[in-house]
Amino acid sequence: MRFLSSATAQDGAREQVFSVGEVPGVLWTPEGADGPRPLVLLGHGGGRHKNAPEIRELALSCVRRSGYAAVCVDVPGHGDRPVDPAYDDLARAHQRRVEDGAELAPLVAEFQALVARQTVPEWSAVLDAVRGLPYVGERAVGYWGVSLGCGLGVPFVAAEPRVRAAVWGLGSGVANAAEAARVSVPVRFLVRWDDERVPRADSLALFDAIGSAEKSLHARPGTHSAPPEAYELDDDLRFLARHLSGRA
Amino acid sequence: MRFLSSATAQDGAREQVFSVGEVPGVLWTPEGADGPRPLVLLGHGGGRHKNAPEIRELALSCVRRSGYAAVCVDVPGHGDRPVDPAYDDLARAHQRRVEDGAELAPLVAEFQALVARQTVPEWSAVLDAVRGLPYVGERAVGYWGVSLGCGLGVPFVAAEPRVRAAVWGLGSGVANAAEAARVSVPVRFLVRWDDERVPRADSLALFDAIGSAEKSLHARPGTHSAPPEAYELDDDLRFLARHLSGRA
Repeated sequence: MRFLSSATAQDGAREQVFSVGEVPGVLWTPEGADGPRPLVLLGHGGGRHKNAPEIRELALSCVRRSGYAAVCVDVPGHGDRPVDPAYDDLARAHQRRVEDGAELAPLVAEFQALVARQTVPEWSAVLDAVRGLPYVGERAVGYWGVSLGCGLGVPFVAAEPRVRAAVWGLGSGVANAAEAARVSVPVRFLVRWDDERVPRADSLALFDAIGSAEKSLHARPGTHSAPPEAYELDDDLRFLARHLSGRA
Repeated sequence: MRFLSSATAQDGAREQVFSVGEVPGVLWTPEGADGPRPLVLLGHGGGRHKNAPEIRELALSCVRRSGYAAVCVDVPGHGDRPVDPAYDDLARAHQRRVEDGAELAPLVAEFQALVARQTVPEWSAVLDAVRGLPYVGERAVGYWGVSLGCGLGVPFVAAEPRVRAAVWGLGSGVANAAEAARVSVPVRFLVRWDDERVPRADSLALFDAIGSAEKSLHARPGTHSAPPEAYELDDDLRFLARHLSGRA
């Protein structure tokens, strides 16, 4: 783990840019933090990056309200990572098939499954590194990610026993039902009722598939890219706090 | 309005049994309350009554956490109200039709619509009376009701402009879609994913039909009669507080 810039601090939160191997990330912790605390890994959306405003706002809320650490890394082909010709070629091939009339959902699912084979081990390596810091430590880990952050987050949470609670949303059972069935930690699942990219039935099918005894679905009107309501994010944080605080 | 027993108080909440005309009710207010405050009308479930434990617990939470008033009255044929032969005859006739293979949902809808023609004006009269008390007053009104409390609550909220926010659940679009479409106040809608009495599609159809710009659906595993989780009730109270506090 290498820190790439000096830490900046503001309103009680410290922000550090780092890399683990080829993976650039941002870590947020409470200013002056000096012991172990729960850690939330945030998965950014498609075309977004580790320090996008919506990610940063959520990370800072984890730090300021809950005293947690939060971390987000760039997905391959996003943010500070180089363009990957293999992913780019596949994305273009998919685009042509959609223009020729192919259904979008199975192609998105196929693409995300391919990317997840790379991001699942990358994110686990980031957990190893970040939890090695004395001011983060080895407490419970939470996951938050919608859209691409759900498509990559479901296989990650299914594979990673250190994650004890997850917020997912705007995802599809076409992509992730099999991995979702292997998950047993509490899941909060967000749906946009007018999502134009994920058919409602696919979205409900993913919720159905989640193996956890404690799971809840929260739907509101709006399209795929509608920004989350402030009270929705409050509820996300309250859910994570209920499951991460006090656990080893 | 007649008070039928002396008030009892406990842990900061005062409980008064009353009647308005033929309608018996219970009013909960903060001990020593002496000015206007938001009021939550609770609709009890089928076979339950105005002072059932789940109603009482929610009412006391409205009082203790939010400083609100809460009120619940017996639905015809429930609690301290006499058996109504007309309703009883109809219920028995429906029961026979179900045994002969008729679909349950349209019969429940027909029955609840009939009862609502009586309860809507009764509940409005209770609002008139309770809001006339100086320690309740004329602030915003909220509604909470699931199952029968949803079936009767949708037509009530559609008809009653003093209600500014509603929590409904375990209800069906077969019964209430037309009235739900006329509602414009914020609605929080609760679904049991494994509800054996309300088919999932009917439940989603009711959420779909709600006319409000701000509405949200919250689904959890469980059957029709699964008791609400404590954190679900917390979220209900937080929703009501967001919409009722500070409004005239």
